[in-house]
Amino acid sequence: MQKQAKHKIVIIGCGNVAWHLAKLFSSLKKHELFVYNHKPNDLLNDFKTKLKCKTQVGLDKIITNAEFYFICVSDRSISSASIHIKTKNGILIHTSGSVKLDELGSGDNTAVFYPLQTFSKQDEINWQETPIIIEAKNTTTKTKVTVLAKQVSNNVGNMTYKDRLRLHLAAVFVNNFTNALFVSAGDIVNDKQLKNLLPLIKQTITKLGRIDPRAAQTGPAKRGDEAVMKKHLKLLSGNADLKKIYKQMSSLIIKQQNNKHA
Amino acid sequence: MQKQAKHKIVIIGCGNVAWHLAKLFSSLKKHELFVYNHKPNDLLNDFKTKLKCKTQVGLDKIITNAEFYFICVSDRSISSASIHIKTKNGILIHTSGSVKLDELGSGDNTAVFYPLQTFSKQDEINWQETPIIIEAKNTTTKTKVTVLAKQVSNNVGNMTYKDRLRLHLAAVFVNNFTNALFVSAGDIVNDKQLKNLLPLIKQTITKLGRIDPRAAQTGPAKRGDEAVMKKHLKLLSGNADLKKIYKQMSSLIIKQQNNKHA
Repeated sequence: MQKQAKHKIVIIGCGNVAWHLAKLFSSLKKHELFVYNHKPNDLLNDFKTKLKCKTQVGLDKIITNAEFYFICVSDRSISSASIHIKTKNGILIHTSGSVKLDELGSGDNTAVFYPLQTFSKQDEINWQETPIIIEAKNTTTKTKVTVLAKQVSNNVGNMTYKDRLRLHLAAVFVNNFTNALFVSAGDIVNDKQLKNLLPLIKQTITKLGRIDPRAAQTGPAKRGDEAVMKKHLKLLSGNADLKKIYKQMSSLIIKQQNNKHA
Repeated sequence: MQKQAKHKIVIIGCGNVAWHLAKLFSSLKKHELFVYNHKPNDLLNDFKTKLKCKTQVGLDKIITNAEFYFICVSDRSISSASIHIKTKNGILIHTSGSVKLDELGSGDNTAVFYPLQTFSKQDEINWQETPIIIEAKNTTTKTKVTVLAKQVSNNVGNMTYKDRLRLHLAAVFVNNFTNALFVSAGDIVNDKQLKNLLPLIKQTITKLGRIDPRAAQTGPAKRGDEAVMKKHLKLLSGNADLKKIYKQMSSLIIKQQNNKHA
């Protein structure tokens, strides 16, 4: 019996999303993986040696017979990268939360595969839990991409561009802005104390799954405790940025609490 | 053999901190618990029926022979509540991150027992992981309170008022402000989508234990991606508060990334 040829997946780019997709697909062992980058990059070597992908510099020689082409480049380069892909039946995919489907061109086989997750290279990703948001030009393409996504995640959904962008914006609030607050906390106390804040942070997150965050709010702003807020602002007197953030976040909390059903 | 009398612990107040301390000490089964509130409150009944504390309304009849008096009232009432405690050897304790020790009066037996945690009544608290910050008027008192704290937590430390206040401020950033961002995210998307953000939030927290948060930062502000930030701000055009927060947090992230060793 002849061994069935593995489906080919092309990944364009060698950043964090490219890395984690390549790692994921190589763990599934159902695909042959090709990684391209438009210019030489030390990271490409990791794909070859650690994940056993075929790698190549330059987008001119991208194979034409792959099933899926994941374009994992910066938002502003998605459109120009897609032009290099000459395929008959392969599906062009971008993974961005904030880019329209039609940046992939006017072809029929285009789709969005947006993993609602944050990717640092050294992370382990729980793909089964990670929501994957799909959008596709037509039903056939949507079905193919959805079948692939369901091999990966238990939470696959469809969404319009506008809803995806909205979700991406919310993700910026809970991920990037939250992380910026952690950086600020680390600037207020030392590293050892930042570690001491971890159980508190974990508890805040645990609540989030069970209690509406408005109801879970605690602290001086929620209580309208002016005396404590004054002490905090005095501590921040040397840091105009954090002082501004403190005032604005406190005033946001007060509004959120007054406007409980907004 | 005569049964040894249990040490008595008095708790003043019936809010979330009072509740979780009473629940904790009643689980240790080493103490007899008395809960007082200055005015009638429906919550007092829960202490009596669910935690088997003795409860009483009014601070005039507080027993004088307890070992520890936990004053778990609002910051501004700590001082006035402490005046009602007439004890010879008992230790007066407050649990606030932002109140000086001497608000407990000029007696020798005063201490701070600050659990670095967020308390909602329906929560389960992991006390073993929760840091407890101690400050005390003298060594004997410090030893007694530390012995008690070590029955509860694996992370007991001493700190001056100024460092405690600084830690409390950092806690406001990572807990209250982070939670306010979750409320905002819930206002941007719907409740179902807020649930979809949970794996992302969990990943952000998981990173925090392993990677310096400056290095873990991702997103449009970190990349300087003006096009995406413009799209996000357009989505927020109907919400002046969130637009302001978006701009300020993004500018904070840009500064944090430029100033990597601050």
